[in-house]
Amino acid sequence: MSAGPGRFAQAARSRLRPLGPYQARIVDGFLAERQRTNRQHTIPHGFDQLQRSGTLDNLRLAAGADGRYRAAADTSGATFPFLDSDVYKWLEAVGWELGRAPDPALTAAADEAIGLVAAAQRADGYLNSYVQVVTGGTPHTDLAWGHELYCVGHLIQAAVAWHRGLGDDRLLEIAVRAADRLDKEFGPTGREGVDGHPGIEMALVELTRVTGDGRYLALAARMLDLRGKGLLGEGRFGAAYWQDHQPVREAATVAGHAVRQLYLDCGAVEVAVELGDEDLLAAVERRWRDLAQTRTYLTGGMGSRHRDESFGDPYELPPDRAYAETCASIAGVMLAWRLLLATGHAGYADAIERALYNGVLPGVSLSGTRFFYVNPLQRRTDRAYAPPGHGERAPWYPCACCPPNLMRTLSALDQYLATSDGTGVQLHQYATADLDAQVPGGEARLAIRTGYPWHGRVTVEVVEAPGRPWTLSLRVPGWCRSAVLIGPGGARPRAAGAGYAELSRPWRAGDTAVLDLELPVRVTEPDPRVDAVRGCVAVERGPLVYCLESADLPPGTELEELRWDPRREPAAVPRPDLGEVVVGVAVPVVRRPPGGPGPADAGPDGLSAGAIPYFAWANRGAEAMRVWIPR
Amino acid sequence: MSAGPGRFAQAARSRLRPLGPYQARIVDGFLAERQRTNRQHTIPHGFDQLQRSGTLDNLRLAAGADGRYRAAADTSGATFPFLDSDVYKWLEAVGWELGRAPDPALTAAADEAIGLVAAAQRADGYLNSYVQVVTGGTPHTDLAWGHELYCVGHLIQAAVAWHRGLGDDRLLEIAVRAADRLDKEFGPTGREGVDGHPGIEMALVELTRVTGDGRYLALAARMLDLRGKGLLGEGRFGAAYWQDHQPVREAATVAGHAVRQLYLDCGAVEVAVELGDEDLLAAVERRWRDLAQTRTYLTGGMGSRHRDESFGDPYELPPDRAYAETCASIAGVMLAWRLLLATGHAGYADAIERALYNGVLPGVSLSGTRFFYVNPLQRRTDRAYAPPGHGERAPWYPCACCPPNLMRTLSALDQYLATSDGTGVQLHQYATADLDAQVPGGEARLAIRTGYPWHGRVTVEVVEAPGRPWTLSLRVPGWCRSAVLIGPGGARPRAAGAGYAELSRPWRAGDTAVLDLELPVRVTEPDPRVDAVRGCVAVERGPLVYCLESADLPPGTELEELRWDPRREPAAVPRPDLGEVVVGVAVPVVRRPPGGPGPADAGPDGLSAGAIPYFAWANRGAEAMRVWIPR
Repeated sequence: MSAGPGRFAQAARSRLRPLGPYQARIVDGFLAERQRTNRQHTIPHGFDQLQRSGTLDNLRLAAGADGRYRAAADTSGATFPFLDSDVYKWLEAVGWELGRAPDPALTAAADEAIGLVAAAQRADGYLNSYVQVVTGGTPHTDLAWGHELYCVGHLIQAAVAWHRGLGDDRLLEIAVRAADRLDKEFGPTGREGVDGHPGIEMALVELTRVTGDGRYLALAARMLDLRGKGLLGEGRFGAAYWQDHQPVREAATVAGHAVRQLYLDCGAVEVAVELGDEDLLAAVERRWRDLAQTRTYLTGGMGSRHRDESFGDPYELPPDRAYAETCASIAGVMLAWRLLLATGHAGYADAIERALYNGVLPGVSLSGTRFFYVNPLQRRTDRAYAPPGHGERAPWYPCACCPPNLMRTLSALDQYLATSDGTGVQLHQYATADLDAQVPGGEARLAIRTGYPWHGRVTVEVVEAPGRPWTLSLRVPGWCRSAVLIGPGGARPRAAGAGYAELSRPWRAGDTAVLDLELPVRVTEPDPRVDAVRGCVAVERGPLVYCLESADLPPGTELEELRWDPRREPAAVPRPDLGEVVVGVAVPVVRRPPGGPGPADAGPDGLSAGAIPYFAWANRGAEAMRVWIPR
Repeated sequence: MSAGPGRFAQAARSRLRPLGPYQARIVDGFLAERQRTNRQHTIPHGFDQLQRSGTLDNLRLAAGADGRYRAAADTSGATFPFLDSDVYKWLEAVGWELGRAPDPALTAAADEAIGLVAAAQRADGYLNSYVQVVTGGTPHTDLAWGHELYCVGHLIQAAVAWHRGLGDDRLLEIAVRAADRLDKEFGPTGREGVDGHPGIEMALVELTRVTGDGRYLALAARMLDLRGKGLLGEGRFGAAYWQDHQPVREAATVAGHAVRQLYLDCGAVEVAVELGDEDLLAAVERRWRDLAQTRTYLTGGMGSRHRDESFGDPYELPPDRAYAETCASIAGVMLAWRLLLATGHAGYADAIERALYNGVLPGVSLSGTRFFYVNPLQRRTDRAYAPPGHGERAPWYPCACCPPNLMRTLSALDQYLATSDGTGVQLHQYATADLDAQVPGGEARLAIRTGYPWHGRVTVEVVEAPGRPWTLSLRVPGWCRSAVLIGPGGARPRAAGAGYAELSRPWRAGDTAVLDLELPVRVTEPDPRVDAVRGCVAVERGPLVYCLESADLPPGTELEELRWDPRREPAAVPRPDLGEVVVGVAVPVVRRPPGGPGPADAGPDGLSAGAIPYFAWANRGAEAMRVWIPR
């Protein structure tokens, strides 16, 4: 049995198959370090915060204990009814981690949480601590804002992780009871209703895959069809906020709350591949193209507006007021992964890479215990008054969706590396990893070794393979202008363009393929229609977007005084101060007095400012920062 | 007895004196037309909306009627506890209007509203329908978000208008009872408390001026001193949101919610001039300078952030996501007026002009019955999905602060035209108006005639004057590069620089002075530190900021394709389609294909796009628009 973040039961329309969990194992290097920090620091910190914040206690109250419900209410009266979902996301992360390797402390924490979830569930299968404790216990009186189905969606995803990763079905039994109750109320002959926050749809499809019970898939399909019929009303931000302004298969562009739209489209792809619904898949692909071309930040961030956490108009991509919620980058990875599986197009793997390195990773500190909710591409001053998470990362949030979303994403990272199909194995993301995959004739074992993302060489050694020929496909990223692929033995190196470079042969143990990606520093011009960064350039290298941070400027220099010096070239430089393998970029700049256009002051030899990878910003205190540098 | 929007009882530190109400009377021309529309359409529409929205009924409930309170709750659970203030702002507008000329229908409507206010007030003087009906009747349990003192502030301002404009003291008696109750609770020996939304402070000073009772001024001074001590807590957006992060006399820059900051500083100026507190005045002036230089839109709009309606960081002035709340522009006018009176500096009158024409007036449709809450300087597309008030103006809002704020501002517009002091009369804003003012030796009567803002000639005829010499001061706006002043008789014309051009003489009936302001089209470059409009220019003429609107483009042309053509000059052109006196600007543009930098297509004779005054935008349906045009 193999499974992964987007495993398919029938998958009539699916082009690629995910590997099963732990069939790909990141064993060393950059991503391994991020996973290690996640396991050792972030996830334990998450349990601590779920306790401190009262989120676990809320489940205790639902199970009958006495006490005050803590819904992160501030004095403005805002309450968050969806906090149960943070427990489920954390459990999902723990499920993947414990499946990878045991950890008694994590097991004990998870057992406690699972016990609380089990105790909180009502006999009729209903489970939502906020409704059970605070609003009187009647389910689904406020589908628009209640997030009850959204929470069940995360419960299901946690259950799927424990089932697939550990073969532990305690959560699955709870999830099935909750889903059965939903099916009774909202199923084919039931009430017409959709949740104000999508997410349940993709989870229901997974539940069908895990249980073989088609009712859940049918319910997901029904909820997709019911969207865009005005069931949710206009709310505070208009019907587009929750994608209820147009039917899912008709809306030409993304709209409204970014995470809601992306989760909804994840569900649409899952339903489309299961039902062979080409129109539905085409609608999601159409929206993705528009999104990628007109409303995605260089970092892969999506959703520029703070007020309603929504996509802006096309080309409305302010760097300073980028919202670019960490959860939206995660959701972008989730959707691109599902589209990659469905279509096999390399562009989706490119999008995963960009969003992962530059949209997801900045959401957590290098220490693993502080988080950004909002990910701007510019911060003018280190002295500005900013609410938590807008200046420095915070250890937790009243609305804590992002931290546990990061945890489950990093725990499942290896599942994004590779896929297989009838012809062989496809490598989409590069990390030092060991890999088992089905290929024609049997199972192949590969050892991938690389210094990515700092270095561009990827070596794939075949450790074991059946005798029949099969194809090894290696993604050449869209940003790469020069790539060379060297096959086993004395094979002549050949240039490879963007997309998948393929080597087909009867692979034998010991065969080695090498992909060499050139990683020059790239100077990136923005689309001229993006008003907010007109006249600026950005620096990239490999998959990484770079930024200037005030900590790296010469003394007495203000970030806002600096302008790009087009007469000199940027250069990659080692940054041992940030890590032994970290590559920085020396950016040629001139200093322009803040008073006005005035004369540029390049100094005798020209100034240089040290850019660092954007994911590493804000780890040295509150600093001014910018990705886009004025020319 | 003379009075005005900022009349002073002692005003030890006040440099200029406001005229009394109706001592300046706008009789014709551009502003007269706006006032007429306000009186004939906007204010009656406001009464209708106060009825439909339930806002008046809420007072009925507080007076004992049965029914459901309507706090503009949407399904997200947000409620607005401050809706009484909309009744008070509307009553303030009606007070000024009825003082100008009777209107039986308006009188009947106002009598009904005043009757409801009177009936709703409790015997102890407390008056707040939300608290009385919804939250159990205990006053001031939530100073941070309750807006109870804020509402009393608007009640006082309405009472002052009815007292000064009509000599009708029904509201004043109610206001005094409410203020006395506040003084008992929060006065010198009472509880330390400040309101999360400032506004009460400036009103209390006015109440002292009207009643002669110094307790209210003392209470205002006390509340100013208590601010910045953490009484309000951090709330959802941090203490700076309600200016509780630093003491009022210490904060170096504006911060937080724009309207809150500006109303607070209005109160600070009022207290400063009454108590001769130069430090306090200096603190407000310091903040104003920073605000004007680093965080004010070309339109005079302030507050760029949607999420918390706050000022951004310095130079964070996105045109597309400008919040620039209509109420913030009004508050900017109110604060600049108080600073003008306190100091006599022409720059404040310049700021009033810019904000009035380009920040306040766009808030209401030319029809007078639809309103913008948010005033962006760019709208990329006419096809975007936008919540009410973000695309087209709306007839009313669940949070309806802006419409009645516009009403009271337009009703009191003549009070901003002129001041007097020991030397004579100062004209700050230009409109065809009749004016009575105290001058050395007695009262002077002036007839001002002008085609402003379309034409730059202002003629001032002395209709009546005492025999003694006095000085007539005429403001030469800061934007004016060439102004000529011609005194009475055969006086030689003389060039006048920015500031006040003065003519001192023993004026006689029939004497005429003429100020000729040149009004060429100006091409304005942004400060290079404003990232969001880098590489753009704007068009201005006289006090008006212009914009391109898609309705004026040649067929088949998209606004976002156009670039400024620096090889040709813009030119003023008549726009009879918008009004017989309206002056538009023909803007030289080239068309750049949206695909990328590509070749510019100027066409055989060059393209031209018709810019209109920004205040007139969005009166022809939902259109794309931009103030800043890429070069």
